[in-house]
Amino acid sequence: MTPVSPAPRIPGHRFLHSPGPTRVPDAVVNAMSRQPTDLADPRVPALIAACEAGMKELLRTERADVFFYAANGHGGWEAVIANLVAPGTVVLVPGTGHFSDSWVAQVEAFGGVALRTPYTEGQPVDPAAVEAALRDDREHRITAVFAVHTDTASGTTCDLAAIRRAIDAAAHPALFVADVVASLAAAPFEMDAWGVNVAMGASQKGLMLQPGMAFIAADARAMAAARNNPAPRFYWDWVRRQSELQYRKFCGTPPLAHLAGLEASLALIAAEGLANVHERHARLALAVHAAVEHWGAETGTGGRLRLFTRAPAARSVSVTAIEVPAGVDPEALRTVARERFQVAVAGGLGPLHGRVFRIGHLGDMNEAMLLGCLAGVEAALRVQRVPHRGGGVEAALSTFTDGTPR
Amino acid sequence: MTPVSPAPRIPGHRFLHSPGPTRVPDAVVNAMSRQPTDLADPRVPALIAACEAGMKELLRTERADVFFYAANGHGGWEAVIANLVAPGTVVLVPGTGHFSDSWVAQVEAFGGVALRTPYTEGQPVDPAAVEAALRDDREHRITAVFAVHTDTASGTTCDLAAIRRAIDAAAHPALFVADVVASLAAAPFEMDAWGVNVAMGASQKGLMLQPGMAFIAADARAMAAARNNPAPRFYWDWVRRQSELQYRKFCGTPPLAHLAGLEASLALIAAEGLANVHERHARLALAVHAAVEHWGAETGTGGRLRLFTRAPAARSVSVTAIEVPAGVDPEALRTVARERFQVAVAGGLGPLHGRVFRIGHLGDMNEAMLLGCLAGVEAALRVQRVPHRGGGVEAALSTFTDGTPR
Amino acid sequence: MTPVSPAPRIPGHRFLHSPGPTRVPDAVVNAMSRQPTDLADPRVPALIAACEAGMKELLRTERADVFFYAANGHGGWEAVIANLVAPGTVVLVPGTGHFSDSWVAQVEAFGGVALRTPYTEGQPVDPAAVEAALRDDREHRITAVFAVHTDTASGTTCDLAAIRRAIDAAAHPALFVADVVASLAAAPFEMDAWGVNVAMGASQKGLMLQPGMAFIAADARAMAAARNNPAPRFYWDWVRRQSELQYRKFCGTPPLAHLAGLEASLALIAAEGLANVHERHARLALAVHAAVEHWGAETGTGGRLRLFTRAPAARSVSVTAIEVPAGVDPEALRTVARERFQVAVAGGLGPLHGRVFRIGHLGDMNEAMLLGCLAGVEAALRVQRVPHRGGGVEAALSTFTDGTPR
Amino acid sequence: MTPVSPAPRIPGHRFLHSPGPTRVPDAVVNAMSRQPTDLADPRVPALIAACEAGMKELLRTERADVFFYAANGHGGWEAVIANLVAPGTVVLVPGTGHFSDSWVAQVEAFGGVALRTPYTEGQPVDPAAVEAALRDDREHRITAVFAVHTDTASGTTCDLAAIRRAIDAAAHPALFVADVVASLAAAPFEMDAWGVNVAMGASQKGLMLQPGMAFIAADARAMAAARNNPAPRFYWDWVRRQSELQYRKFCGTPPLAHLAGLEASLALIAAEGLANVHERHARLALAVHAAVEHWGAETGTGGRLRLFTRAPAARSVSVTAIEVPAGVDPEALRTVARERFQVAVAGGLGPLHGRVFRIGHLGDMNEAMLLGCLAGVEAALRVQRVPHRGGGVEAALSTFTDGTPR
Repeated sequence: MTPVSPAPRIPGHRFLHSPGPTRVPDAVVNAMSRQPTDLADPRVPALIAACEAGMKELLRTERADVFFYAANGHGGWEAVIANLVAPGTVVLVPGTGHFSDSWVAQVEAFGGVALRTPYTEGQPVDPAAVEAALRDDREHRITAVFAVHTDTASGTTCDLAAIRRAIDAAAHPALFVADVVASLAAAPFEMDAWGVNVAMGASQKGLMLQPGMAFIAADARAMAAARNNPAPRFYWDWVRRQSELQYRKFCGTPPLAHLAGLEASLALIAAEGLANVHERHARLALAVHAAVEHWGAETGTGGRLRLFTRAPAARSVSVTAIEVPAGVDPEALRTVARERFQVAVAGGLGPLHGRVFRIGHLGDMNEAMLLGCLAGVEAALRVQRVPHRGGGVEAALSTFTDGTPR
Repeated sequence: MTPVSPAPRIPGHRFLHSPGPTRVPDAVVNAMSRQPTDLADPRVPALIAACEAGMKELLRTERADVFFYAANGHGGWEAVIANLVAPGTVVLVPGTGHFSDSWVAQVEAFGGVALRTPYTEGQPVDPAAVEAALRDDREHRITAVFAVHTDTASGTTCDLAAIRRAIDAAAHPALFVADVVASLAAAPFEMDAWGVNVAMGASQKGLMLQPGMAFIAADARAMAAARNNPAPRFYWDWVRRQSELQYRKFCGTPPLAHLAGLEASLALIAAEGLANVHERHARLALAVHAAVEHWGAETGTGGRLRLFTRAPAARSVSVTAIEVPAGVDPEALRTVARERFQVAVAGGLGPLHGRVFRIGHLGDMNEAMLLGCLAGVEAALRVQRVPHRGGGVEAALSTFTDGTPR
Repeated sequence: MTPVSPAPRIPGHRFLHSPGPTRVPDAVVNAMSRQPTDLADPRVPALIAACEAGMKELLRTERADVFFYAANGHGGWEAVIANLVAPGTVVLVPGTGHFSDSWVAQVEAFGGVALRTPYTEGQPVDPAAVEAALRDDREHRITAVFAVHTDTASGTTCDLAAIRRAIDAAAHPALFVADVVASLAAAPFEMDAWGVNVAMGASQKGLMLQPGMAFIAADARAMAAARNNPAPRFYWDWVRRQSELQYRKFCGTPPLAHLAGLEASLALIAAEGLANVHERHARLALAVHAAVEHWGAETGTGGRLRLFTRAPAARSVSVTAIEVPAGVDPEALRTVARERFQVAVAGGLGPLHGRVFRIGHLGDMNEAMLLGCLAGVEAALRVQRVPHRGGGVEAALSTFTDGTPR
Repeated sequence: MTPVSPAPRIPGHRFLHSPGPTRVPDAVVNAMSRQPTDLADPRVPALIAACEAGMKELLRTERADVFFYAANGHGGWEAVIANLVAPGTVVLVPGTGHFSDSWVAQVEAFGGVALRTPYTEGQPVDPAAVEAALRDDREHRITAVFAVHTDTASGTTCDLAAIRRAIDAAAHPALFVADVVASLAAAPFEMDAWGVNVAMGASQKGLMLQPGMAFIAADARAMAAARNNPAPRFYWDWVRRQSELQYRKFCGTPPLAHLAGLEASLALIAAEGLANVHERHARLALAVHAAVEHWGAETGTGGRLRLFTRAPAARSVSVTAIEVPAGVDPEALRTVARERFQVAVAGGLGPLHGRVFRIGHLGDMNEAMLLGCLAGVEAALRVQRVPHRGGGVEAALSTFTDGTPR
């Protein structure tokens, strides 16, 4: 076997501003570094119970069961699909962009029929379209609404409470399934209050863990639907996992390091206070918006940078997609930002590839980290001669210092 | 959210002698603790390429493709089943005990038909029975032989090369699928030389990683079978994953920490030398056998401890199952060993629950660790008044010191 | 600069049974790994205050001040000498073996006059000799008694309370200075109750830290003596360090990582309970004694292994020195134990070099670790053909399992 | 003992911009986290030899011996003093500000006589004054010149080569002793080429280690002077430490974790290339200067921020002292920067307390980290209503992007 060659030395730490994976805090690193135990050690069920309870608190649910999978976010989607979608099952997927499209493709791979509501770039889900689609479905063939809370590709967050109201207004019995991968522990989410039957997410975003674990929370209605679903499944099967037997609960070996990390992560969130976590994410997002709007002010030089999500209320607190002018290569910009200024931002996904770059600002993030990121991005804009008005960092930091005293 | 309460202080380190998860070496802990990067960082494909190449070397294959999943071992099984088994597909599962039974159950959950060869407790797979079953299958309905190399529950290892010869002797076109979860990087395995078409395993055993990653190696025949399989799948789909696009290769976010850990783990194996790794596992296993045989010598007090696997050649180098006399509760023994003497061993699975306990001796293990484990077990035997001849540790250590000089 | 070449791979963890440095627990490793802060960060004085308070609790003193030095144990000695010894100052150093001799040499390097009480190999300090020496000193020229609590070289612990009684019986005003380097957090120590004026120690033994920090606790009488001492000093100066100013308290930059580690270490001791810590050390020491006495039983083959410290009550709970028969090279034995069986034990110091080897059993240690160590030593005895009766491990483990139920 | 109470959660990482301690890179953290070995393990002398060789390369000396102390920087000074200064010994200490004053105080505590050259705020050492002082010393009573390369308090670096030329021009036999605490591995240093007889430094600055280790490099002339010095010493004694015996070399237990960290740190420096390390420090320093000069541009509002060190060539590449206008409290500014914006900068020392704050930019630092720091400082300037021209971050980042292409 070939020895591992050392990577070139990069001094200092890399600024990680992808919308996931996100920085892993020291306490979580330490927890994930604990040596494993034998699976029958009584500390294992105690750890699992703590994670289940903590996730229920975080999801704001008392009635759902929580399942953890060694899997990524697509595995989490597959868990939803495997349990709720048999060949021919119809679901409604409100259009959010790349991630609703991707979820649809995965539904269709299992023989499901995915209806969609129209998607307009830069706009969140239109609850009225959801309501109309459900009203049109007089035979109640639609079994579930699969809604992506924050579309990571566009940086747009939809109003899940409004979608709930749309379902209710249509008096439709469809299950309400929410993908909170990119929003949980960043934006408010109220599983019970919003009547969400299934919530799913993954470890490497607001939960501040390494990638590799997905979770599902499913309430009794969702479990009943799963029990009635004849499609074959084993690993993903909620019914099999709804067990006190650890071996069934995890379909084999639990992802111990991720669970240990989650316990630590939940403790960090609790120590900060969930409302403070949400407020911090909102504060950091506003600073990014200010920087981008400053960069994109009219400069007379042609195209300009702008926020991809037009409606301020729909801008995600987790990630901001920034549209570049025609002729600018956002991938080249990213390379300069990463390799020369140690700031890693994300690119455009799917149809947005080459049109946007994205700044992640979720998870274990603070003001100085964000300002350093913005400075690195601004430096890359200069190097790449992307038209922009200088001073975006100052615009961002002024959002922290102006206004009402804290 | 409730603060995490500290566990009671246990001085020193816990001896982990489960057959998986196993101890994670410092170099792997450090690698798994690295902060994630953005997914487009060029260091990510370099890491993936290193892991793929290293696994191919470890599996001794030049012709198979390797896929990594955020999943546990059952996820790895599901990957095999989802790609090779459609409803009605027939596979032959040679009887190895609990794990062949479990794999059968998972095959059946997908509508597959699993034929079995007989299983005799304490005995490995009988290649003649495999050959006979294949010869009986004149219409070649059997599409694959699913063989567990080491049944972790019984501590029995079968002779995969002999199974290959049995398939060849029957001139049967079935694919040969090997579960090397509990054997890889402990016992020799030769994917290409033994004509194995698919090998699968998981991270938390001989690879010395935290649980949470499974791998598949599939050759061209296996890929062709997968392409011809109409059963719905997405996350597990080899065809989709056989791509240069990272997003497809991992069906979303790669398990970065596990891949970084694997790169480190493979470097440790390379530094020791694979043949030395195998030799060390064999040496440690013999010491365990000596201790158990010493403990189980005729004492005139009724039942005795004995090695569950009767044939010495079939005893796993990874894990040893030890049968207890009637009336002895191995679970109580384990609790004493773990909670009073800091030695965690494993219990019996499935039908062996309450009949055996198991000592894992694979992965990042050395002589002193094993002797400490055996001493802790012997102390627990004394506390629990399990009939045994004292001095098992001495019997074990004498296997290290006697015989030909090293 | 030359790249660092990787050391050969040693599987598993090394058993560290030196009497210091000792194993560093994970919680301490994590604490010592925290990034430093700026020195004016208010978390620094909070950390220092926690360490001072915790050390006072551990030393069982309410009246002494605690000083921490970036230094090793000899630095701690030098702090004592620099503050209490001017040229011509007379101190009484009860004979404990190598470490009392070494302390004397250091006193003399500063022009001090060190009187000694006789030292008999294998015996602890004779309090009567101390009393006699002090009674003889009618002019009270002796300013201090410098007593090593546990002589790490011989594994012998003296009775500090009896020395205190000897000083009182002689009605002598000498300060009582105790070196608790090898005993603190292993054996009971009562600074105030035993009238100890100065206690000194270091980080890498019972405190379970990396080497590099020494501590001093000095009461008002000791501080008065220091103030009256005209000898030049700066770094070690207690008077300068007795300050609320952090910069003076540490004579510059504090050893932040060691302080963070100490806070964690003190928390571990508190979580276990100091009495339990002492009891555990006593229990582990008895097991070592049992093994050595078993190994050394009459075998008819000439010399035998024996415990260097003859009087059971004087045997240290931290470290055991084992005398080898003439003709046995303990250094070769150690090399085999370390390099072949991964068990690192200590050699003989000073006059005991080549006559003894030593097993450390202090700090973050448990039963299984100790039994693994003893097994490795016994394996090395076999390899080296050192005459011994086999079965020492069994003798040791029976001390854990026999007798009164726990 | 009181349980450790958790500190309030601070999200993200703290920006550490003190001039020491500095950020510890992951590779160094991992190395310092290695479990200790027994002191006779052959890996210990190998580690020591690697550190000695690496330090000689870094110091650019082939002829000096290197000694490592468990100590901080003041301990390093004390090592110099203890070996070279007896009561009455005369040394010349060129005035650099707070640190030359402090070194003088320590010399005087040992009875030495310290002559000084005049110090002018904001100016480096005047080599002509050194030459004049030495010429005046016709009887060659001055035994050594003690020069601080970079005065951490003022952020001023003197020209050691010019001081060497001054000594030569005066044809004076004084030893040349350089304090490179704040400059090594940041600014060029040439021990042999510049005729430096003794260099001393500490671990927590350019070497990127935790605080707690000091080093001395001494050549043959320095060793001869030490041998002739009758002053009592033991721990610091170079003559005793100039030994192949590890126990003498470290006067007891070596600071193993720091040595392991140093080996890793030297490997990082080698991987980057020492010239690149110097160039990076220069580049980052220029960016800080640009920001401060931008902030301090004429604003018409009275006082302004300015660089304390007037002569650009004398500005340290490690740390920048920034003078605040009258009426501005730099300590309050620091508190806001640290507690609200997670950017820890340093305050003024000695006479500069309340007049300056300092930004450290040495060690494991990159562009984005520095820009984040400057943004946090600028945010604090806004909050504290310190007069300044906004846009300092942009000024800084433009130094990275303008000018000749890289």
